[in-house]
Amino acid sequence: MSTTLSPTPRTQVSRGKNRAVTDRERLHTFLGEALVAHLGIIVGSGGDAHPVVLPTAYGFDLDGPDAGGSLYLHGSVAAGWLARALERDVCVTITELDGLVAARSGFHHSMNYRSAVVIGRPRLVEDSGEREHALALVVDQMIPGRWATLRPATRKELAATAVIALPLAEASMKARAEGPVDDPADIDSGTWAGVIPIHRVAAAPVTADDAEGAPPEDVVRRAAQLGAEAIS
Amino acid sequence: MSTTLSPTPRTQVSRGKNRAVTDRERLHTFLGEALVAHLGIIVGSGGDAHPVVLPTAYGFDLDGPDAGGSLYLHGSVAAGWLARALERDVCVTITELDGLVAARSGFHHSMNYRSAVVIGRPRLVEDSGEREHALALVVDQMIPGRWATLRPATRKELAATAVIALPLAEASMKARAEGPVDDPADIDSGTWAGVIPIHRVAAAPVTADDAEGAPPEDVVRRAAQLGAEAIS
Repeated sequence: MSTTLSPTPRTQVSRGKNRAVTDRERLHTFLGEALVAHLGIIVGSGGDAHPVVLPTAYGFDLDGPDAGGSLYLHGSVAAGWLARALERDVCVTITELDGLVAARSGFHHSMNYRSAVVIGRPRLVEDSGEREHALALVVDQMIPGRWATLRPATRKELAATAVIALPLAEASMKARAEGPVDDPADIDSGTWAGVIPIHRVAAAPVTADDAEGAPPEDVVRRAAQLGAEAIS
Repeated sequence: MSTTLSPTPRTQVSRGKNRAVTDRERLHTFLGEALVAHLGIIVGSGGDAHPVVLPTAYGFDLDGPDAGGSLYLHGSVAAGWLARALERDVCVTITELDGLVAARSGFHHSMNYRSAVVIGRPRLVEDSGEREHALALVVDQMIPGRWATLRPATRKELAATAVIALPLAEASMKARAEGPVDDPADIDSGTWAGVIPIHRVAAAPVTADDAEGAPPEDVVRRAAQLGAEAIS
């Protein structure tokens, strides 16, 4: 793989080209840090076709079998979106909000963020080994190291869970990480301008009602602490 | 409007029906608390059609002129998505992550979240008064009260900004806000189970390089403080 993102016309960033991030390593770093993906699928056909966008967990494997690495999504084998996602191309967008950009004018208000857009035709993961590996990645994306502390998945669980893989080849990334860009005439207005940084943080783990007594494993404490440190 | 959500077949929640939120007031409260929307549009036609999902700021007005109230998105008049969004139905999904749900099995790992899905045909907001009102709502969604502290928008700024309105009538909402639901056989395994709460918090405002000396207005301090309090 090239180390730079080479978007096709479908993932070419058309607006805000100065915010397009062409370094593939930055995409990979971002995928490791985010938590929620939005899956866009087309439902219906012809004039009745409309998109549906669903939030979902995800995992990824840069050494996965798909071009550019594999982005994994999972769901119930009975989920309606699953069949539709396999029939047509989908779009998966992963976004993290990093700040509110307060300018001197409403027009120049903005957000600092990182966002990756991946388009492609998903592949149904049929190999049970790859499916289990993908589910481990999805769990560990939320709580790194968690999967290894759990009992193995059962055959029944694996049979009930569908996993799709999307190649990371056709991906683009945008990021804004700067202060407000005001019109020169507004700078001396006396209005404050700057950024309110936004962080996603984790609070102390809340033990389930039926689990009193069992202390959280190190991986859980670490996941909760990492978040709390992020605002200090 | 009915006070309950009455989804059409398009917004009917098909999976996890126990997580569908039918109280319209809860949708409205959630819209007031979230910050980022994901807009799904269809690009191309026939076999080449594919969805594109883009992150964006938003605002909303329950007394807006659209059925159920108006969800507003804005962008440059030159943005490629704009024309496409007006030609076909779109889907706007707004999600906030509230927690990582750690169960005793990978299978039962989950996320706590709130998510609203709105489907419909957007209307281009042509009235300049409504357009300015919508832009004020978008800015105040980020920093409540900010718009009133700014100079008025100029005619040039309003002419460069396109606003679309989506009726909130065809909306559904899902929320998960509970601990893990484990298989009975796993509960005595000794594995910790519970929730790592996740919050989006704001840090202290960072003044722009060209604005040293100007103190942040109360609305900015309030927006930054509200976030910081959320983790205490």
